[in-house]
Amino acid sequence: MAQLISVHDVADPRLDDFRDLTTADRRPDRPGGRGFVIAEGTVVVRRLLASGYPVRALLGVERRISDLEPDLAGFEVPAYVASADVMAGVVGFHLNRGVLAVAGRAPQPSVVDILAGSRVVAVLEGVGDHENLGALFRNAAALGVGGVLLGAGCADPLYRRSVRVSMGNVLRVPFARLEPWPDGLSTVRESGFTIAALTPRPDSVALRELTGKRVALLFGSEGPGLTEEAIAAADVTVRIPMADGVDSLNVATAAAIAFYETAGR
Amino acid sequence: MAQLISVHDVADPRLDDFRDLTTADRRPDRPGGRGFVIAEGTVVVRRLLASGYPVRALLGVERRISDLEPDLAGFEVPAYVASADVMAGVVGFHLNRGVLAVAGRAPQPSVVDILAGSRVVAVLEGVGDHENLGALFRNAAALGVGGVLLGAGCADPLYRRSVRVSMGNVLRVPFARLEPWPDGLSTVRESGFTIAALTPRPDSVALRELTGKRVALLFGSEGPGLTEEAIAAADVTVRIPMADGVDSLNVATAAAIAFYETAGR
Repeated sequence: MAQLISVHDVADPRLDDFRDLTTADRRPDRPGGRGFVIAEGTVVVRRLLASGYPVRALLGVERRISDLEPDLAGFEVPAYVASADVMAGVVGFHLNRGVLAVAGRAPQPSVVDILAGSRVVAVLEGVGDHENLGALFRNAAALGVGGVLLGAGCADPLYRRSVRVSMGNVLRVPFARLEPWPDGLSTVRESGFTIAALTPRPDSVALRELTGKRVALLFGSEGPGLTEEAIAAADVTVRIPMADGVDSLNVATAAAIAFYETAGR
Repeated sequence: MAQLISVHDVADPRLDDFRDLTTADRRPDRPGGRGFVIAEGTVVVRRLLASGYPVRALLGVERRISDLEPDLAGFEVPAYVASADVMAGVVGFHLNRGVLAVAGRAPQPSVVDILAGSRVVAVLEGVGDHENLGALFRNAAALGVGGVLLGAGCADPLYRRSVRVSMGNVLRVPFARLEPWPDGLSTVRESGFTIAALTPRPDSVALRELTGKRVALLFGSEGPGLTEEAIAAADVTVRIPMADGVDSLNVATAAAIAFYETAGR
């Protein structure tokens, strides 16, 4: 069982994992970044506890820590209980979710392992926006996608904002970097997947015509879309029929439709 | 052609329509609210100019105003040209889109008119989040939904944040309040629509089994979902098959899938 520890001093060094979160959640290779995985709110903290990531500590107001007590059975980690004001002083802003947990990073499965366990996977290129990336993982979890492969130019799914927007689903849906890009797509094809690039070009087939027992859905970033190299490396190009091609859909929304049509079948 | 006017003084009273936007975009019935429609960025300003809403004025940096000059043909409105700093001083925060336009409200079409022109409509209950509402309008425009009917508890689609998140599509997709709620749904049925309530309850039919020449898709808010009264007023309940029913999908994402399945057929 986690050890409950009341804290009253914003400067308490035991809270350093939670300090100045706007910088502490950055990737380890960036200034100020410690590369921790940070979960906010009881739903996401629960998901972190269930994930296998090495949880280091919790910090929360009394009510939230007490909500989580059943989930903390078996965890030998400190759970710091503080007032909302002390929490805000440590974290650097006011948190309305009342509880945080910090974990280290965990080894990710390999590309081959993800492919072996999946019928549908998402493959991303240039999805650099943390909110879009988080939303895409949420949609992948809800609609039964087996994993996410990250090509060139993708953001870190374990950045705090991605974790939050994904509702913690970045901790559940396996992901891996696919390298080199786009040549690594040959590994996907060799595992028996049809690689379908989502692109609005008029010669693309309509999404509902897409066949293939195992499908890798390839998405580019909002705006520029997929590179020519990525499209050339796909087996087929697929489009979502649009009333208005001008701004198209947000990438996570387009992905949700494609996940629904393929994984949900 | 709009009249280009250089401005240098943050206190210039001609810029009052753009002042303190965090309050000025509120609904007229709220403190500080003037009820203006505010468009941010060239894409959304273009959409406002094309919408028929009575445009009052533009404010932008030189480059953005000049990008918009072709769209301003025929508009007898002032276009104030300012530095980014003067703009920020007026608006109350730094705008990275470089141009704004302000319009008055326009009369909205009636429920009956929207129904007459549509094969698929969205009907919302309790969608009070401005970003979700804006995203839903964006998805409705992209996927060919004829209009949006707002039941009880919905936010104002013309609030600044909704306009922005919708990419200006709240100015293109017609909407109307559906009153009284939920009894007004009888008008929808009498116009020949099958009313399909989206709800994850297990006795709902799978979305892809939904039939009906004309369909009104009924969505509740994220979290509580539709009220029992609204579900009882529907003809059929429909669910999106989910791998994990726990957090389900964001309402705008669920709507995109339902729009794709019905309007895109």
